[in-house]
Amino acid sequence: MRINTDDYIVDKSHLLEEAKDCYHRLNSESMEYTGWVDYPAGIDRELVDDIIATAEHIKSQCSLFIVVGIGGSYLGAKAVIDALNGSMHGCPDIQFAGYSMSAAYQEKLIRRMNSESTCLCVVSKSGRTVEPMLSYAILKDRMFAKYGIKEARRRIYVITDETKGDLRIDAFENQFKSFNIPTDIGGRYSVLTPAGLLPIAVAGHNIINLLDGAKSLMDDRLWEEGLLDYASSRVALQKAGKCVEVFEYFEANLTVFGDWLQQLFGESEGKEGKGAFPACLCFSRDLHSMGQFLQQGNQIFYETIIRIKESAFDLEIPWQAGYPYAGKTIEQINECSESGVIAAHRKAGIPLGIIEVDKLDEYCVGQLIYFFEMSAAVSAFLLGLNPFDQPGVEFYKQEMKDLVLKL
Amino acid sequence: MRINTDDYIVDKSHLLEEAKDCYHRLNSESMEYTGWVDYPAGIDRELVDDIIATAEHIKSQCSLFIVVGIGGSYLGAKAVIDALNGSMHGCPDIQFAGYSMSAAYQEKLIRRMNSESTCLCVVSKSGRTVEPMLSYAILKDRMFAKYGIKEARRRIYVITDETKGDLRIDAFENQFKSFNIPTDIGGRYSVLTPAGLLPIAVAGHNIINLLDGAKSLMDDRLWEEGLLDYASSRVALQKAGKCVEVFEYFEANLTVFGDWLQQLFGESEGKEGKGAFPACLCFSRDLHSMGQFLQQGNQIFYETIIRIKESAFDLEIPWQAGYPYAGKTIEQINECSESGVIAAHRKAGIPLGIIEVDKLDEYCVGQLIYFFEMSAAVSAFLLGLNPFDQPGVEFYKQEMKDLVLKL
Repeated sequence: MRINTDDYIVDKSHLLEEAKDCYHRLNSESMEYTGWVDYPAGIDRELVDDIIATAEHIKSQCSLFIVVGIGGSYLGAKAVIDALNGSMHGCPDIQFAGYSMSAAYQEKLIRRMNSESTCLCVVSKSGRTVEPMLSYAILKDRMFAKYGIKEARRRIYVITDETKGDLRIDAFENQFKSFNIPTDIGGRYSVLTPAGLLPIAVAGHNIINLLDGAKSLMDDRLWEEGLLDYASSRVALQKAGKCVEVFEYFEANLTVFGDWLQQLFGESEGKEGKGAFPACLCFSRDLHSMGQFLQQGNQIFYETIIRIKESAFDLEIPWQAGYPYAGKTIEQINECSESGVIAAHRKAGIPLGIIEVDKLDEYCVGQLIYFFEMSAAVSAFLLGLNPFDQPGVEFYKQEMKDLVLKL
Repeated sequence: MRINTDDYIVDKSHLLEEAKDCYHRLNSESMEYTGWVDYPAGIDRELVDDIIATAEHIKSQCSLFIVVGIGGSYLGAKAVIDALNGSMHGCPDIQFAGYSMSAAYQEKLIRRMNSESTCLCVVSKSGRTVEPMLSYAILKDRMFAKYGIKEARRRIYVITDETKGDLRIDAFENQFKSFNIPTDIGGRYSVLTPAGLLPIAVAGHNIINLLDGAKSLMDDRLWEEGLLDYASSRVALQKAGKCVEVFEYFEANLTVFGDWLQQLFGESEGKEGKGAFPACLCFSRDLHSMGQFLQQGNQIFYETIIRIKESAFDLEIPWQAGYPYAGKTIEQINECSESGVIAAHRKAGIPLGIIEVDKLDEYCVGQLIYFFEMSAAVSAFLLGLNPFDQPGVEFYKQEMKDLVLKL
């Protein structure tokens, strides 16, 4: 993992000491909701084995695995599975549900459920969030109707708080196999807990390598310097009036990883009138929609480019008379596009940083996750904020509840 | 169509006269690249019949229709097809390609091509854009290999400039059926030309209703007032320092419509250091990632909510003891969520406007398209910009070209 913050062109020196202090406090003091800091290193080996064995069982049972969750309860798992190019050959197709209230989408899923061998998993720490609980109620109902109670019990999995909440009771009463989301880990920092690990394992990916990737950063001094540079740069940029952070990548499989970043930074920093608005662009696609704005529009943003050194896939461009790209590969052209954008934006004076990993495998994705989680936490501390709460979401929830009661 | 700009809470009165003037100039003067203004009313009936007949032929030939394009050459068509809930029953699945350089994605498509009856369509005005032309080169090659020259000729379609460019020559030499993108319509304003109409018709949707929806706004005074209010409000907000416009919708099928809006506003306004950074959020999903930021984060944004009055789909929530949502429908809860968010954001003083249509059918989608196209053009004029050029995209293209030549 390589972190280049030189081109953010901002003086961050006055923030570095404090950033270091925040980082060390996160690693040493006991703070609420910091269970994720040590989790990849401290996870119980028996738990990992149980997740892997359960995933093997699910793989042998079904071709469709529906995961119900919203926010941190689905974004992390989907981000990782997509980054690793979806389910491995022969593994169930993973479909996520409960993150929107679209009846159309729900109907489509039910149609697939009816024709394919299905397992269902619900992920919610509180067991109370409206959207996934509605979706779960509908889908559980259909699972019971399709398989009968006895068989459905073997096909439904619950991931929730260890002791609290309606889902914990539901799992107990119905004898569903269940896993815990640790009490001291919030949703947006939970991808490396069972909440993410089970779906990722069902998709056929190696969760031990994923955890190892995250763990690899813990004692790496080079990485620590990069982290402190990145967190300090982004806070210095925000204080200098750059109020949008644009995450950019040249790999379409990182699209949901971008959504995960948006939640991580948006919820960790977006309080007390502070924070950079997190936006995500996938190039080349979005160069042809937002390239103009970036180059010459309102310069209220800075760019953070996630660079993948080697692509897992490539394809040669066929020969055609007079065609300048013939004989090259798609990845060669994609790299030229990436380097071309970086050069053009540097020349335009746009602040930009580059976070690079070798390739999109489990290990490197684990590194990216841990790097950004730690960056979000340290940045929020630097801004004088608690990274782990989200007091603002109660307002619309209360308004919504009042309206539902009137129905 | 109803446009409510009251809650933008900004004084726009000084801009209204100028907005009106811009709107009337767009409708009366001959300006470069304003062919889209009259197109829905002026389109040749024979052309519409030809598009419909061609779509019928394609539908009878294949189960997979691959459309190669980038930016305005795919976003509009995909936005409309997704908004209308995808292909109609019995119509080909439409897959878009050439908008990213992902070899992984291209490989997946080729695998599908090999096992399904396929037609291919390439959309590019210039016929020179790197990404779609690479994708087209690869896919055309496979079409010839799979079907042989004679049959492939009946399965490949070209949509490009009437007279200029390599694709026009390609279509002529290979005797591919082709359609024209009018010279005086730029990519981001081209969805109601054959570029969008052919794929939309192949997906089984009624393009006459789509055009009628757009046309319905042309002589509607109520709509004209709403348009001028919206364009003036957004410019006034930008001048007051609100530098991000967040487009929001409670219908997942509008996700790509959001991408289309991002291009439309980003490229029309993002020049000379001006413009609002266009961002899109799909609720409920993104409430659980960005809800916190919106409610309490850095207040550099204003919100534009696209509201669909009636959903095309609904689903009842099954009965469960003690469950407060049982017996309600998903759409009822979704509406409470929408109203709850609007109430909470109003109370927080966040500037917000609401653009409402009756439902997501062809007619209303046509209205939305024309409304936003006109809004983008009028707003850009108010900012003293040319809405129809994109001079900034040349910079990275030149850097990229230099790098490709060195390969």
